[in-house]
Amino acid sequence: MNQVLSPVGRMAAGGGLKTITFGPDHPLLLSSGQVLSPLTIAYETYGTLNADRSNAVLVCHALTGDQFVGSVNPLTERPAWWPRVVGPGKPIDTNRFFVICTNALGGCMGSTGPSSIAPDGQPYGLRFPVITIADMVRAQAMLIEALQIPTLFCVIGGSMGGMQALQWASSYPKRVHSCVAIATAARHSAQNIAFYEVGRQAIMADPEWRDGDYARHETRPAKGLAVARMAAHITYLSEPALRTKFDRSLQARDAVSFGFDADFQVESYLRHQGQRFVDRFDANSYLYITRAIDYFDLAADYGGVLAHAFRDCPARFCVFGFSSDWHYPPEENKAIVRGLIAANCDASYVEIDTDKGHDAFLLEEPHFESALTGFIDAAAASRGLPLKAEAA
Amino acid sequence: MNQVLSPVGRMAAGGGLKTITFGPDHPLLLSSGQVLSPLTIAYETYGTLNADRSNAVLVCHALTGDQFVGSVNPLTERPAWWPRVVGPGKPIDTNRFFVICTNALGGCMGSTGPSSIAPDGQPYGLRFPVITIADMVRAQAMLIEALQIPTLFCVIGGSMGGMQALQWASSYPKRVHSCVAIATAARHSAQNIAFYEVGRQAIMADPEWRDGDYARHETRPAKGLAVARMAAHITYLSEPALRTKFDRSLQARDAVSFGFDADFQVESYLRHQGQRFVDRFDANSYLYITRAIDYFDLAADYGGVLAHAFRDCPARFCVFGFSSDWHYPPEENKAIVRGLIAANCDASYVEIDTDKGHDAFLLEEPHFESALTGFIDAAAASRGLPLKAEAA
Repeated sequence: MNQVLSPVGRMAAGGGLKTITFGPDHPLLLSSGQVLSPLTIAYETYGTLNADRSNAVLVCHALTGDQFVGSVNPLTERPAWWPRVVGPGKPIDTNRFFVICTNALGGCMGSTGPSSIAPDGQPYGLRFPVITIADMVRAQAMLIEALQIPTLFCVIGGSMGGMQALQWASSYPKRVHSCVAIATAARHSAQNIAFYEVGRQAIMADPEWRDGDYARHETRPAKGLAVARMAAHITYLSEPALRTKFDRSLQARDAVSFGFDADFQVESYLRHQGQRFVDRFDANSYLYITRAIDYFDLAADYGGVLAHAFRDCPARFCVFGFSSDWHYPPEENKAIVRGLIAANCDASYVEIDTDKGHDAFLLEEPHFESALTGFIDAAAASRGLPLKAEAA
Repeated sequence: MNQVLSPVGRMAAGGGLKTITFGPDHPLLLSSGQVLSPLTIAYETYGTLNADRSNAVLVCHALTGDQFVGSVNPLTERPAWWPRVVGPGKPIDTNRFFVICTNALGGCMGSTGPSSIAPDGQPYGLRFPVITIADMVRAQAMLIEALQIPTLFCVIGGSMGGMQALQWASSYPKRVHSCVAIATAARHSAQNIAFYEVGRQAIMADPEWRDGDYARHETRPAKGLAVARMAAHITYLSEPALRTKFDRSLQARDAVSFGFDADFQVESYLRHQGQRFVDRFDANSYLYITRAIDYFDLAADYGGVLAHAFRDCPARFCVFGFSSDWHYPPEENKAIVRGLIAANCDASYVEIDTDKGHDAFLLEEPHFESALTGFIDAAAASRGLPLKAEAA
């Protein structure tokens, strides 16, 4: 791919990650009015771009995800995060499609973010500009242009990834053949803003955060970030799932300890989630990305009318909701579909009955996978793509 | 009341609070097997105990409440916390009933808790024993005995207060004529344990907490406690209430700031809730009381059969639920009623249709108030108490 990229960027190989860097001749104009330059986008690809350049799928990750949608992250050694959806023979079949996944702008897996080095040679920290979902999408669009892909066959994502997918259809309606928005909303709710604010306050309350300037020091605001993760994690699981999985079961003991150890399995699980997270995620990235999500309100730039955000978008849409998701509940998922229908878009809605909550899109959900396969195959046919990889 | 109390305790007047202290001759045996002595219970009373000593109502407060159910707290200057329910002419009419409200064991408004001075002259801190809801009730029962009240006309409370009311009926079935449990559960759910664990971790992550030993220092773990309060506060409000009250409205600005100020009203509100809380509540009390609630599982001591916890209790019960309460949702409220019915108890269930969430029991809910009045009046009649105060 290096050759393709050379006209507009230079490839870097920081930490074994695939990246593209855009210099001062290609600044990123942000929603805030500020400009970000230089800009590095770290990304991963799977499969082969066809001769027509018509089989590209952009996968957008969620808040704490990364670009390793279909393979092990070489730095964290965590496995692929969507192995049931992306891979050979999967709904997004890497034998047929050229799959691209970028680390989101503001992230901490190679793309420019608050832990990146600013032009003055020091880490940005809180000097990093506050970004939006639209900014993340603008940065992705620069990569897609650099890859000389005029139109994406599909843009797809869950949670924050779904917001990006919707933003793509709104910002670049002619450059998206199909759009899949999963377990997401067209606007972040007050309750969700509240949960993110708790997380940010937990990080900022940690003295190791040092007003965002911890990069110059040996220590990190790990305790605050762990609390933030714990609070958010509760919203990713349904109450029935917590009841089924943990209920009031004790952790490796027969009776409560009359103390503040993790007596209950659910406590032990949450602490573990918090601890694991701080090893792989940057506290300032957490602040910036949650803020971008808070700010997401697709209708706001269109007089509050969601349909206007999708006007003239010829893409085929599929919106997925999960019945027990209370982070982005079916009511919010359906509000997207109502906006699409009001805009006369080609839109389907699939609601999966599950008790797995918001995280269901990352877990085993056969009905979700089969419905997604059906949508992708129909969209591929309408794009003139061969139905089977071996027919290519 | 001083005269009545003198046989078993001595009255103290610490900080203008009404208290009773039980010395080494009256130790409190705790669920953990430990013993607490001396024991001080701070309490407030309203109205007059009748000659039969048959008109006493014990009101139990929620996690962060205090004994000032019907009057201004002289220390915090906060108004009465249940003015719509307790007072002259209110459902619990202080012209007819003698109302008692204690600061819960483990609290920080005069009752013995982790900020109290231990027998060695130093604050308990984490040396305070972990307590249970049953321990809180045992401590209250000592006060009720000291007040020479053989049977309470009613024990009533919401949230943790409702747990205490149920525990009273279970621990002292013959000493409760009627029991009102509001917006509560017979066991704390995994999701609720998870939220409390987030709060505790936020407190413990604050270096000012100093392993619970902050009392010897000038500073307090205010930031951690504020985060804990913010996380819990979200669970007290319903999503529809947050949407109706705040939605995505901005706080005193026309556009987002592209920063980490409280752009949204819901952020500003939550921060304010956190800040106000730390001025009136003790961080270690928060740890101990949330732990007591985590541990609450009324059926657990009875082979997991809730009905057995209420066996032989002749009290009249009324359980109230609020449709949008997701902290202790109607499903949990009804589980209490099923247990009561299985125990052949006299039990009513009233579910109030409201979007106010868990906190509805503290807010204006006319249907709740009228149903409560009806239950109290019927229970009073069955107790032979006059229906109107002027008839007394």
